[in-house]
Amino acid sequence: MAGPLEGIKVLDLTRFLAGAYCTMVLGDLGAEIIKVEHPQGGDPSRNVGPYYEGDVSSYFLSVNRGKRSVTLDLKTEKAKNAVFRLAARSDIVVENFVPGAMERFGLGYETLRKKNPGIIYAACSGFGQTGPYARRTAFDMLIQGMAGTVSITGEPDRPPVRAGFSIGDIGASMFLTVGILAALREREQSGEGQLVEVGMLDCQVALLENAFARYFCSGEVPQPEGGRHPVATPVQIVPTADGYMILAIANDTQWETFCGDLGRPEWAEDERFKTNPRRVANREILEGMLFDLTRSRTTSEWTKAMEKIKIPCGPVNRIDQAAEDPQVRSREMVVEVEHPRRGGMKVINNPIRFSRSTVGPQGGAADLGEHTEEILRDLVGLSSEEIEAWREGEIV
Amino acid sequence: MAGPLEGIKVLDLTRFLAGAYCTMVLGDLGAEIIKVEHPQGGDPSRNVGPYYEGDVSSYFLSVNRGKRSVTLDLKTEKAKNAVFRLAARSDIVVENFVPGAMERFGLGYETLRKKNPGIIYAACSGFGQTGPYARRTAFDMLIQGMAGTVSITGEPDRPPVRAGFSIGDIGASMFLTVGILAALREREQSGEGQLVEVGMLDCQVALLENAFARYFCSGEVPQPEGGRHPVATPVQIVPTADGYMILAIANDTQWETFCGDLGRPEWAEDERFKTNPRRVANREILEGMLFDLTRSRTTSEWTKAMEKIKIPCGPVNRIDQAAEDPQVRSREMVVEVEHPRRGGMKVINNPIRFSRSTVGPQGGAADLGEHTEEILRDLVGLSSEEIEAWREGEIV
Repeated sequence: MAGPLEGIKVLDLTRFLAGAYCTMVLGDLGAEIIKVEHPQGGDPSRNVGPYYEGDVSSYFLSVNRGKRSVTLDLKTEKAKNAVFRLAARSDIVVENFVPGAMERFGLGYETLRKKNPGIIYAACSGFGQTGPYARRTAFDMLIQGMAGTVSITGEPDRPPVRAGFSIGDIGASMFLTVGILAALREREQSGEGQLVEVGMLDCQVALLENAFARYFCSGEVPQPEGGRHPVATPVQIVPTADGYMILAIANDTQWETFCGDLGRPEWAEDERFKTNPRRVANREILEGMLFDLTRSRTTSEWTKAMEKIKIPCGPVNRIDQAAEDPQVRSREMVVEVEHPRRGGMKVINNPIRFSRSTVGPQGGAADLGEHTEEILRDLVGLSSEEIEAWREGEIV
Repeated sequence: MAGPLEGIKVLDLTRFLAGAYCTMVLGDLGAEIIKVEHPQGGDPSRNVGPYYEGDVSSYFLSVNRGKRSVTLDLKTEKAKNAVFRLAARSDIVVENFVPGAMERFGLGYETLRKKNPGIIYAACSGFGQTGPYARRTAFDMLIQGMAGTVSITGEPDRPPVRAGFSIGDIGASMFLTVGILAALREREQSGEGQLVEVGMLDCQVALLENAFARYFCSGEVPQPEGGRHPVATPVQIVPTADGYMILAIANDTQWETFCGDLGRPEWAEDERFKTNPRRVANREILEGMLFDLTRSRTTSEWTKAMEKIKIPCGPVNRIDQAAEDPQVRSREMVVEVEHPRRGGMKVINNPIRFSRSTVGPQGGAADLGEHTEEILRDLVGLSSEEIEAWREGEIV
C-alpha cells in the first residue's frame, strides 16, 4: 500500500507554520516534499524551542517530518536556475512569503509557469495576494484578533484571550491544501496548472462561519461565552467533584432523559427549562441547580453514567492526558519518527484514515541542507565540482 | 470559467456541521451536491436559530448553500434502493452518522462499493470508525475538551473556556475534505474508490500539534496563556487607549526596531529583555512597562505606526467589524446568495482563490425536499405516479 498522493512532487518554499503544515499534510499523504531553505539558518522555525538533544527544534520537527532539505540562497542567479529545474519536474510549488517577494526573487507564478505550464503554484499569506493589506506581514494571533476569533473566545467582562492554538496559521494551511488538491483534479481535465492562493484572514473568517451567520441574520454581535454554547443549554463546561467536564445536552429529548435518569423529573416539567430557548433564557438559574448536581460526582463517574443514556460527556483533558487517552492511542495519533543519530521522537500523526491507502509521517526532520548534495546532483544535474563551488560561494 | 471540481457528483447524507461543512466546501468548488434528508424535519440544523423570514435557519443556510435537497426515509427498502441508484452515479458519498448506523440502514461502504466500485465513501464521526469510543456520540465542545483545546485556552487560574467557534466540527470537515480529494487523485491512478474516514477527536489533536510537540519534547504540560503567546514575548493582546490590540514582536530584531522607533532604546539594551527567552522569563516586568506605553495611543494609531516599521499589529475586531473590514470586503469574503421568494441573504464565502477556476456558493439553501421530484424522476428514474405513491407512504 502507498499514500494516495504517491508520485506527486512538491517543491516546498515555506517557512514557519502556515505553509509548512500544508506540505506536511501533503507529505503524510505520500507526496515527495523537497524543502528549500536559506543556507544561513534555514527555516526560522528551526530556532524555536523546546529542543531535543542536538538542537532539533520540536516546533520544526512537528511540521517538517518526512521532508528532504536543500539549501539555496534564492537571491543568487545560480540558485534561481536550480529552482527552475526543480519546478520543471514538480507538480506543486508551495510558498508563504509576503506577496511580492517571490516576484522579486524572479520566481513568481508567471515565471514558473513558463518553465512548467502544468505547475500548481500555491501561495499562503497573511491577507492574500490582493487588497489593501496584501503586503502586510501577519502572525497567527494577529489573524485571530482581526477575524473576530478573540472577540468570541474567553469569559464575558474579562480581558480578551486567544484560542490557545495556532488556528490562524493552520486554518489557512488546510484551505490551501484543499485548493491544491482541487487544482490537481482540474489539471487532470484541462492539462493546465494554475495559481491557488489563500489569505490567513479570509480563512479564519471562513472558520467562524456560524458567528457571522448569526450576526448577518439577527444583527446581534456575538459575544464571548466562556464555557457555554451560544445557542444551546446546557451545552457547556461544568464543575465536577474533581475538576471540570463537558456536558452536551443539545435538545429537549436529551434534557428529559437526563432529568429522568438523574432523579430530577421536575426539572424537565419546569416551564423555565422545558425547551431549549427557555433554558437559554434562564440559564443562570439552571446553572445554579445543575452545578450543585454535577459537583456531587467525579468526572469519571459522570462520563460513565452519561454514556449509558447516550448524552455526550467527557473530561477537560490536559495535553498529557489527551496524549494518553485510550481512543487517541487506539487511533495511533501519537507516532514515533526516527532520527538516525538521535533515535525516536514523538509527533502527532495525520488523522485521515483510508481503506486502501496509507498515511503518516515519511520520516524524521532533516538537518539543514541534509539532502543538498543528492538533490543538486540527481535532480538539478550539477557535478560534484559545481556543488563544491556553490558551497564556497555560499549559494548553498 | 468553472469550479475546479465541476463534474464531480456528491451524495450528501450529512447532518449538522461536521459533515455539512465538508460538502459545502466541495460544492463551493463546483461539485454537484445532492443532500438526502429525512422527510420529517430534515437535517436537524434546520431547527437552529436565528431565523430569516419564512423560517430559514441561518445556521442551516450558512453551511448548506448551493445543495439540492431530496427527502428519503432511509429506514424503508424503497428509499434504500433510491440511494443505491444515486450512489451508482456519484463519485463521492459523505455521511456523519454514528458508526454502525449506515450499516444498519443497509448502506455501509461494503454494500455501496458493490453498486459502484469507484465510489469514494467518506465518513466523519466523533471518534472515528474504530477504537473504544467509536460508538459514542460527540459534540464540538466535547471534542475541544477531550483533545486538550480547552485546557490551553483562557486565562490561568480562571474557569476553563472553549475556543469560541466550532473548530471541533470544522477541523474534522477540513481533514475529511483533504482525504476525499486525495482519494479522488488516487482513483485517477487505480480506477478504484475507497473508504476515507476521520474522527473529530483525532483531527482536533492534529490541529493542536505544537502543544503536543512541546509536551513530548520537554515533558512540561502546556497551560492556558490568556492573551499571550506561549514561547514568544511580546506577542500578545495588549491594552490601548480605546480597547485592545494584538502586537506581535516575535524576534530580537523586531524588538530592537520597536524600542528604537518608540524612543525606548534602553529597553532593547536591558539584559532582562535582550533575547526572546529573557523576555519570556521576565514578561511580567516587561508587560508592566509595555502596557503603560501601549495605553498611550489608540488601536488605530498603533496599527498605522507599526505598519511603518513592519511589525504585525492590528485590532481585536468584533464580528461586525470583521465583516466590514476593508481587506475582508476587498477579498469578497461576504457574499449574498439569492432565495427566489425571500431575496438575498449574506453568507461567508469560500476563502480559496484560483487564477483559472471559480469558487463560491452555487446558490441559496434549498427548502426541505425542494428537489425531491426532479431528483427521483431524473436521477432515480421514478414515474410521477410512483413519486406520488412514495409521498403517500411517507417515504419522501
